[in-house]
Amino acid sequence: MDNFTFYTPTRYIFGRGAEDKAGTLSAELLGRKVMIVIGGGSVVRSGLLGRVEESLKGAGVEYVILKGVQPNPTDDLVYVGIEEARRESVSGILAVGGGSVIDTAKAIALGAIYDGDFWDFYSGAAVPQKALPVGVVLTIPAAGSEGSGNSVITRRDGMLKLGTRTDSVLRPKFALMNPELTFTLPPEQTAAGIADMMAHIFERYMSPTRDVQLTDRLSEGLLKAIIEEAPKVMANPTDYQARANIMWAGTLAHNGVCGTGRVEDWTSHAMEHELSALYNVTHGAGLAVIIPAWVTYMADVAPEKPAELARNVFNVNIPDDRAAALACAAALCEFFASIGLPTTMRELGINNPDVPLLVERLHAVKGHQFGGYRLLDPAATTAIYTLAL
Amino acid sequence: MDNFTFYTPTRYIFGRGAEDKAGTLSAELLGRKVMIVIGGGSVVRSGLLGRVEESLKGAGVEYVILKGVQPNPTDDLVYVGIEEARRESVSGILAVGGGSVIDTAKAIALGAIYDGDFWDFYSGAAVPQKALPVGVVLTIPAAGSEGSGNSVITRRDGMLKLGTRTDSVLRPKFALMNPELTFTLPPEQTAAGIADMMAHIFERYMSPTRDVQLTDRLSEGLLKAIIEEAPKVMANPTDYQARANIMWAGTLAHNGVCGTGRVEDWTSHAMEHELSALYNVTHGAGLAVIIPAWVTYMADVAPEKPAELARNVFNVNIPDDRAAALACAAALCEFFASIGLPTTMRELGINNPDVPLLVERLHAVKGHQFGGYRLLDPAATTAIYTLAL
Repeated sequence: MDNFTFYTPTRYIFGRGAEDKAGTLSAELLGRKVMIVIGGGSVVRSGLLGRVEESLKGAGVEYVILKGVQPNPTDDLVYVGIEEARRESVSGILAVGGGSVIDTAKAIALGAIYDGDFWDFYSGAAVPQKALPVGVVLTIPAAGSEGSGNSVITRRDGMLKLGTRTDSVLRPKFALMNPELTFTLPPEQTAAGIADMMAHIFERYMSPTRDVQLTDRLSEGLLKAIIEEAPKVMANPTDYQARANIMWAGTLAHNGVCGTGRVEDWTSHAMEHELSALYNVTHGAGLAVIIPAWVTYMADVAPEKPAELARNVFNVNIPDDRAAALACAAALCEFFASIGLPTTMRELGINNPDVPLLVERLHAVKGHQFGGYRLLDPAATTAIYTLAL
Repeated sequence: MDNFTFYTPTRYIFGRGAEDKAGTLSAELLGRKVMIVIGGGSVVRSGLLGRVEESLKGAGVEYVILKGVQPNPTDDLVYVGIEEARRESVSGILAVGGGSVIDTAKAIALGAIYDGDFWDFYSGAAVPQKALPVGVVLTIPAAGSEGSGNSVITRRDGMLKLGTRTDSVLRPKFALMNPELTFTLPPEQTAAGIADMMAHIFERYMSPTRDVQLTDRLSEGLLKAIIEEAPKVMANPTDYQARANIMWAGTLAHNGVCGTGRVEDWTSHAMEHELSALYNVTHGAGLAVIIPAWVTYMADVAPEKPAELARNVFNVNIPDDRAAALACAAALCEFFASIGLPTTMRELGINNPDVPLLVERLHAVKGHQFGGYRLLDPAATTAIYTLAL
């Protein structure tokens, strides 16, 4: 187990009616005037935005609203938000939505009190030291951004999708999590969210660090629960209990606890980011395509951890590591397919992907070799993208 | 899953040399003058106290030292500490030790800025609203107090052992966790600590709340890892990796995550507290005696959760719930015995326990019926104590 620091100062309020705390918690933790950040019309149509506004008014918190966050959120709206946040002198940002909305809110929170270009924090030119406080009303369990110190933004110029990661600067001050708010998610979004949270655990589990039995068993437990609950939410979108399990799983998958004391991988995310950037696919669906291909590739290179996952999560009883790793890839594909996710690029709607371009862009960002579990060079990433066709 | 709030704002610094951060973190989070609280001589003899003092001096933090905390810590030293904390106008408390030291530090932190008797918070007469900030250098993985909002103190007058539980008021600001500091723990203390952390998971797992698959699988994963690592630390006390897994397990077992969204039990703890108070046994050893008896009793009353534990942690393959629950009790006994723990009161050194007195004292504190999983009345607790003989 490697040395680590772990600090997760987010207040989680979980359950029915949690969003009614938006006013009092914003008053306490975000200050006298907040910017509400939302996506499209669903939070308006559902009445959620109205309830949040009432809650803020009731607590004497002023607000402005920034709308229009899209999936795979882009820098242009961040710049608009930063300008407005400064003009309106807001004291905090309240994200009402899923990962894209929260990540946009975090980028605005960084940029509003930074003299330079907020993109510096994503390009690696600067390290986040401070940000306006962010609060969350969560509507999509997937990205885990409600509890993480991370944010991912795509720069339109060059479609560069990059993330910033902080120990605690970007962790939301509070997250209001009412599983009922997820009842109306379309099935494909529910499924993509499930793949996303599984990927967050997977990227930590796939570690070269030995002797991390505690976080191994913890990660396996979370994965097993997600696999157990996923069919229930797909079959019955208003199953409160299953929705609740999935929602809390999304947070624990990405608050960092599964990664404590170990080197993490994150190559599947990096490879998917290029798919998203070039073909604008849903992040979770892209992960469902990349991860089994990555596992298949690793069966020949470093099958130990995929084999362990196969045995401890999918009850695969095969002594040979390579065969067990291949069984892991098959089990992942079977599971993803069972909840309606694509497991090939073709199924994802990308019939003729430009693999050389994907590889070139990927390594332009990540360097010639990258990866926590095993280093991937262009030959390796070409092989994995090809396995994903 | 029930509604819940979860807020764990403790900074964990984990790994070799973690204690060297005592100075800088105290300066930042505890203020200009701290009271160091320690137990007996082991932290002096090992040189740890000296290193912590150097670290504080290096960071310009003044300190006074309060020594003499005993296992099952008592109120008399808390009163001494409160007086000294006031007289010296300390701004924070730094616990260097295990659960007894940390719980004493927390009690002093509460009492030093409270007008009344600190015991009010333990008797239930007052609810903790504020406390001096507490920091921890952990030397015994067991109680989980380094990450919890709880504290347990015994009042000498009547030997009343009671706890106070807060969402976050009593959570330490930081916890410095170097597994090397646990290399020199005597085997019986290591084993008792393992039983204690397992009990913290067990008390949450034994819940009447349905549909908490996520925290069920999470709890099972933690228990499996502890059971996997325990024999390693018993066989080789300087196995850094196994010590590290056990140390971090103790924190996650009791930071509350395993209890999110569910009613918890805590009857085994309450029953053990009476054993500790009357016979001054080691808390963890007492739990190793009470828990199998509790499980055996439940086999006839409500075998579902013990049966689930048997199947998912101990790989018991028995369809009948009652038989599986009895197998759970047997597996727990076998495991506890394998690390040298007692599993009967006789083995604990209590040859002729006064069961009626234990039961009388227990219900005087907890009421005629108490318990999260199933309500226990005096007939039930008498049966459990008797099963533990």
